[in-house]
Amino acid sequence: MTARAVIDALRARAWMLATAESCTGGLIAGAITEIAGSSDVFDRGFVTYSNAAKIEMLGVEPPALERFGAVSEEVARQMAQGALTRSAADIAISVTGIAGPGGSGQKPEGRVCFGLATRGALVAETVDFGAPGRAEVRAASVAHALAMLLHAAAGDQARP
Amino acid sequence: MTARAVIDALRARAWMLATAESCTGGLIAGAITEIAGSSDVFDRGFVTYSNAAKIEMLGVEPPALERFGAVSEEVARQMAQGALTRSAADIAISVTGIAGPGGSGQKPEGRVCFGLATRGALVAETVDFGAPGRAEVRAASVAHALAMLLHAAAGDQARP
Repeated sequence: MTARAVIDALRARAWMLATAESCTGGLIAGAITEIAGSSDVFDRGFVTYSNAAKIEMLGVEPPALERFGAVSEEVARQMAQGALTRSAADIAISVTGIAGPGGSGQKPEGRVCFGLATRGALVAETVDFGAPGRAEVRAASVAHALAMLLHAAAGDQARP
Repeated sequence: MTARAVIDALRARAWMLATAESCTGGLIAGAITEIAGSSDVFDRGFVTYSNAAKIEMLGVEPPALERFGAVSEEVARQMAQGALTRSAADIAISVTGIAGPGGSGQKPEGRVCFGLATRGALVAETVDFGAPGRAEVRAASVAHALAMLLHAAAGDQARP
């Protein structure tokens, strides 16, 4: 199970995790905390559904929301960095996307942006999952976020 | 589906919701945001897994954690009140409990405390779900929290 692998990789590095979720609405935190012992590596989660929540909880800059929109790599980066700064975590993952119909109009349904922040790096990426439905996009986003965390925690560890 | 009924009841009152979750780890927010249109009524969620997160994100008082423990009605009340104060919400639900084995020792596995805050009221209650397993206690806690929200939002509405 990926969540368990993520927890094992984080524990091996003595890293704490924070999450910042918009379209997944808490499901990444939910997947991590499904595993017994997750309190060793999970500090806190921010479910920033409204733009006000993104600004107030994570320090996302209003001009970034206006210029790029909530579903953008820039906002995903700011969400991940904000979660790292405003927690005791060593690594933070963020997700912001259009899970179902009726998003922004200019951006396609199924587009999801991810951010990942550690003390030394900040990355963002965009995935177009298409339009299989709200639940499917959310589940695929959780899986993608867990894979990013595993890569960051276990991948770095494998380097010389 | 209960989440949909909660959203309909909140929308009828033009109430915004915030969540403050410990043992459910984001699953209440996840259940609410599963429903299309939930952004009309869901503002934000706090996943306060560590005690530090409860203190920093929700303003839970350290003496309450020390005296009553994280799984207590007093802490549940403070979590719900903190979520209400630190959001744009009109109603906030909180959950703190022992989902699986290896909790505090003094409190039984399956004990979960809930708090519910509105602009005019603050209530707390405790449910002992027994020890059916971590996933089962979490799912039962989500269902109980949604039922509390529905009662508060739809029940008040029914009063003369």
